Amino acid sequence: MKFSSKTLEKAVEAVSALPSIGKKSALRLVLHLAANKGDKKKRLVEALEALTNDLKTCQKCYNYSDTELCDICSDMVRNDKQICVVESVKDVMAIESTQQYSGVYHILGGVISPLEGIGPEDLNIDSLIQRLKDEEIGELIMAISPTIEGDTTIYYISKLIDTEITISTIARGVSFGGELEYADELTLGRSIHSRTVYNNSVSS
Amino acid sequence: MKFSSKTLEKAVEAVSALPSIGKKSALRLVLHLAANKGDKKKRLVEALEALTNDLKTCQKCYNYSDTELCDICSDMVRNDKQICVVESVKDVMAIESTQQYSGVYHILGGVISPLEGIGPEDLNIDSLIQRLKDEEIGELIMAISPTIEGDTTIYYISKLIDTEITISTIARGVSFGGELEYADELTLGRSIHSRTVYNNSVSS
Repeated sequence: MKFSSKTLEKAVEAVSALPSIGKKSALRLVLHLAANKGDKKKRLVEALEALTNDLKTCQKCYNYSDTELCDICSDMVRNDKQICVVESVKDVMAIESTQQYSGVYHILGGVISPLEGIGPEDLNIDSLIQRLKDEEIGELIMAISPTIEGDTTIYYISKLIDTEITISTIARGVSFGGELEYADELTLGRSIHSRTVYNNSVSS
Repeated sequence: MKFSSKTLEKAVEAVSALPSIGKKSALRLVLHLAANKGDKKKRLVEALEALTNDLKTCQKCYNYSDTELCDICSDMVRNDKQICVVESVKDVMAIESTQQYSGVYHILGGVISPLEGIGPEDLNIDSLIQRLKDEEIGELIMAISPTIEGDTTIYYISKLIDTEITISTIARGVSFGGELEYADELTLGRSIHSRTVYNNSVSS
């Protein structure tokens, strides 16, 4: 790609450094912004600067927040005896959008992955253990990716906990609306192994 | 989507205001930027501010440029007797990448489209006519989209020119590497109508 302007070229470079945006998409976005007479550029600049200056991380659960404690941690109505342990902010948003959980969260910031050089010390595990000591937690719900790394992380955390806290994992099985023949063997095998008693679940 | 932070929400709004970026992609980009420890955000902000402050439009051809006259217009080696008339900056980049054209350009900024409320006065047509008066132009190559609006624009411009300038349009026909059976009727019909003499084109 040959650019008529260094300014244009630098802008395309900066935009295409973002994930899943190629040079062509970046050029399209930059030309759109360059031609925009409104305040799109200004609003983007302000938003990016706010990300640097104003965005905080909740001191308790590591969720993004505008304040020291996030809305969820400071919400007195929520059940603070239950901590749902997740990998990322995105997972919190996904679980919140189900409206099925009323406890609090703890964001690990990833999973243990020796291949990628991510060890327990790179994750928010120490602070989780500290929370279990400081707060009265009854249950730890592990909502971690069902991968080998995820399972390793759950195992590692469970070994650090010697108190009588219930540790649960979210159910793994066939997706709702999915067809059995398209489920992979491992998922299907696990879903048979972890079957729930129908009578009980209906009557309860 | 429920956000844990107003700052995050505003950033997602600003990013999803860009064309072909939905809320989900915007969230992914913003979370990537928020988590980025490097200077990605800073470089983006600088690039956006440079687009506002430093990006100029060439006074002759309306291409984006860092200077009053763009690299192409100020290049003494190029043939300034030929003007290629295009719709946008992207078209200049596309033609430049073919390395088949050594003349100069004139960017209209669009085509005449009554449906979208774009009239001749919204395009850089007056300045094109002025260039034809001021400069010694031998040929005007119309590289405009082969649409009704494009054809209308070519016709409109051709009617304004009463001097002995040659007006040509880029060839319209089947794509190189394309198969005839997949070409649409209009394109195939036109390509038969505008056939070139094979003997001549080989011998010339």
